Amino acid sequence: MSTSRIRKEVDEALLAYVDRQRPGLLGISPDLVPLLSALDALLGGGKRLRPLFCYWGWRGAGGEDAPEIVNAAASLELLQASALIHDDVMDSSDTRRGQPSVHRRFEAMHREHGWPGAAAPFGEGTAILLGDLCLAWSGEMYESSGLGDGALRRGRAVYDLMRTEVMCGQYLDMLEGARGSGTVGSALRVVEYKSAKYTIERPLHLGAALAGAAPEVSEALTAYGLPLGIAFQLRDDVLGVFGDPAETGKPAGDDLREGKRTVLVALTLERVAEAGAGVLRRRLGDPDLDDAGVDELRGIIEESGGLAACEEMIERYTRRAAEALEAAPITGEARIALSDLAVAATSRLS
Amino acid sequence: MSTSRIRKEVDEALLAYVDRQRPGLLGISPDLVPLLSALDALLGGGKRLRPLFCYWGWRGAGGEDAPEIVNAAASLELLQASALIHDDVMDSSDTRRGQPSVHRRFEAMHREHGWPGAAAPFGEGTAILLGDLCLAWSGEMYESSGLGDGALRRGRAVYDLMRTEVMCGQYLDMLEGARGSGTVGSALRVVEYKSAKYTIERPLHLGAALAGAAPEVSEALTAYGLPLGIAFQLRDDVLGVFGDPAETGKPAGDDLREGKRTVLVALTLERVAEAGAGVLRRRLGDPDLDDAGVDELRGIIEESGGLAACEEMIERYTRRAAEALEAAPITGEARIALSDLAVAATSRLS
Repeated sequence: MSTSRIRKEVDEALLAYVDRQRPGLLGISPDLVPLLSALDALLGGGKRLRPLFCYWGWRGAGGEDAPEIVNAAASLELLQASALIHDDVMDSSDTRRGQPSVHRRFEAMHREHGWPGAAAPFGEGTAILLGDLCLAWSGEMYESSGLGDGALRRGRAVYDLMRTEVMCGQYLDMLEGARGSGTVGSALRVVEYKSAKYTIERPLHLGAALAGAAPEVSEALTAYGLPLGIAFQLRDDVLGVFGDPAETGKPAGDDLREGKRTVLVALTLERVAEAGAGVLRRRLGDPDLDDAGVDELRGIIEESGGLAACEEMIERYTRRAAEALEAAPITGEARIALSDLAVAATSRLS
Repeated sequence: MSTSRIRKEVDEALLAYVDRQRPGLLGISPDLVPLLSALDALLGGGKRLRPLFCYWGWRGAGGEDAPEIVNAAASLELLQASALIHDDVMDSSDTRRGQPSVHRRFEAMHREHGWPGAAAPFGEGTAILLGDLCLAWSGEMYESSGLGDGALRRGRAVYDLMRTEVMCGQYLDMLEGARGSGTVGSALRVVEYKSAKYTIERPLHLGAALAGAAPEVSEALTAYGLPLGIAFQLRDDVLGVFGDPAETGKPAGDDLREGKRTVLVALTLERVAEAGAGVLRRRLGDPDLDDAGVDELRGIIEESGGLAACEEMIERYTRRAAEALEAAPITGEARIALSDLAVAATSRLS
């Protein structure tokens, strides 16, 4: 089955799941409709990377194509929706996938109705609750995927680990941002837990575990997935600074305004002359950074050699992933699909 | 088994569960220790109402005493920890169970380290993540309780419903606060979903479902649990305004400062003369409300007859629950324990 076909099936599984929740929510109160609309809008976007890696982990370990694995894989998209909604609150992001973020959406609803009191806390509170709901629903969708008890039990061990890792990784990310230690090593540790394991390695493991894969299959998927996941995040960091807003769905330079302590920034700080480092440290995280300020920081990152070093890392990790994939004891069909996904996850287009 | 003995076993199950997570977190990074300390502090308090109702739902339906049901019941305390941590962010509450709330705790940590940037968003972000972790862990603790696949599947249907109901109920609560419609009916709908079902009815149902109870047992538990749950929340509302801070663990009048649109407030607004209603509407939700302001609002709630009406409702719902319990087709031991719990949940002591 082609990747675009699976993506479509994942979309349909998500739509069907949310539709099954709809009558229950309406039974509680029609006032809950805006929560469903916000979720529909958010789930309309996204590249479905985690479900795709989960699906191909399953197929790679010899699992047959079946709606049950698509359901289980699609549940990862609800986990991701939860993470995005809460992330946007934590980062005070205005947009997500080219639309207003959930907390901004409900802040606007409060304002449009002219309700008394502050609109922002209403938006944030709603986003916290909707993120919680998506997190609960991701587990519910997984458990109701239709897979057997034995498979679900095997997969749960991976699912549990993945959730703990991504939440801890996000905390470490915030901590790095607060402490501003900013070494390449500390930034890479955050990338490993918050992103590489969560986006690629664990979804692959989940699929493989559901299919009852032997340990050597999981190990091979790590050898492919972990370096690819690092390369994926480094590409995302580069796009966060240099990407086209029309492609990323985020305003240009948003990562700079948020002050993200990325590997790209750490690589730049290792290389840049003192004057440039001072500017970078001072203006990184400045919410009022304008286009000229974004251009200045971009210039420093490029001229210091930080950007080139990051591109070189992306290439090295991508190559390592490709080599591991060649040697992995998985089905041929999965090898081809995972090779294509590696390109999609690390290409210069977002 | 006595209720105090079960409470102790629930405490031990929670401690053991968090201890099992500890090495995994330390393996990611020793920087995660403060998350565990904050969770330990929060889990040290609490009356364990939800686990107790779950346990007695199981015993009432004929389930034998066993560590597996204690584990499954204790997982509800992690769900509750998640709700409390996120609630405190949404309400900007400073304290919880007589200690600083989680977001205040991490705000203080940021300040003590003298890190650059704002401390409050770091505290709130950490609390959002720790609440997410508790929500994920509640599901993990339930699934790893040791109960069989069939029991877990039956219980999951209740667990799923409970989580969706409480999150939707919290949103409706916030919406009522924002719109300020403030009728007794709309406040009661919030109480039903956010509190009565979540605290009493669904935990009872969960225990009964795990034990494989017949539908008439679940129906009887609803006839007892739903009115008792309403009485429980109304008692909580009264304590939130008139309670002793030493008992409630919250500063006096905190509910008034937060502007909670409780049934108590709605009953008062139905009864109070125009002048008092004006004062109540104006000062409810004023974060700067001082002791004199709290006393003034208390006076209005009492003199209007709102307090008496609320006490009368508590008595009526408690009586209805007691009558249903008499007639319920459950074991004698469970009937006695649930009768005691009804008193504990609705007594004037918090």
